[in-house]
Amino acid sequence: MTSHSNESPDLVLERVVPISAEQLWRGWTDPKIIVKWFTPEPWVTTEAEIDPVPGGIFRTVMCGPDGERNEGSGCVLEAVVNRRFVWTSSLGPGYRPVPPSTEGFLFTAILEFTPTTGGALYRATARHSTPADAMVHAEMGFESGWGAALDQLVRLFA
Amino acid sequence: MTSHSNESPDLVLERVVPISAEQLWRGWTDPKIIVKWFTPEPWVTTEAEIDPVPGGIFRTVMCGPDGERNEGSGCVLEAVVNRRFVWTSSLGPGYRPVPPSTEGFLFTAILEFTPTTGGALYRATARHSTPADAMVHAEMGFESGWGAALDQLVRLFA
Repeated sequence: MTSHSNESPDLVLERVVPISAEQLWRGWTDPKIIVKWFTPEPWVTTEAEIDPVPGGIFRTVMCGPDGERNEGSGCVLEAVVNRRFVWTSSLGPGYRPVPPSTEGFLFTAILEFTPTTGGALYRATARHSTPADAMVHAEMGFESGWGAALDQLVRLFA
Repeated sequence: MTSHSNESPDLVLERVVPISAEQLWRGWTDPKIIVKWFTPEPWVTTEAEIDPVPGGIFRTVMCGPDGERNEGSGCVLEAVVNRRFVWTSSLGPGYRPVPPSTEGFLFTAILEFTPTTGGALYRATARHSTPADAMVHAEMGFESGWGAALDQLVRLFA
């Protein structure tokens, strides 16, 4: 299930998955695992550096089939093992503000993993500055992209 | 002691003060106390709202003698009672990114309070995106301003 209205600056993807909260946590915080599922095919995540402590780095390099290369270096804000992982593109490692840019948009990712019978409830919130930024992210394919990536993570463990 | 070089994006104010780490913590996190010292005279802090937990609000309204009004709503990142308090102007409450602006600069404030015999070591770091932003902050009077405010906090308790 995803939800977004024109008035909300948040996008939410919520799904019951047949893998555990511990596996969701490993998928998001272990660089060796995140490179295997983070980008919907045919994109690939070629590098990841993650220090899952407040102030730590959350860096990924995503490459597309036509030579595109997106590198992002964010900052971990909360890391509650197996339950909750929060990082933002507004800050770099050590909470250093990123310089203002007119390109793209900033967001904070709030990942919540709740154990259920036979799996977990996965809830991903992308929190933006404004409803307009959320709309840009929605039109880029937030729902299908984050959903397809999640499917890849589930297949890794299921 | 303060330190800044042209190459550093951080400004640091470090001082031994004759009040305790607990009093420094209260000064920074209790809205009823922060309004009494946060702005060097003749500026006054007229309002403060502080929720000292990760994701909580850090909001102040500072007014100048000629009717100036500076309102800032930041986000608490770390709150280690009596020892360490971190907040940023890059995010609003709930870690929501602030919209990019060409005015002013963003920074993260890292406040560290270390008990010493007879008082505490106070260390305030203002962490910026770039050395240029740090220079703007330095030229605005970071050292004298944050120092004069600290003097006011010390006088409140000493």
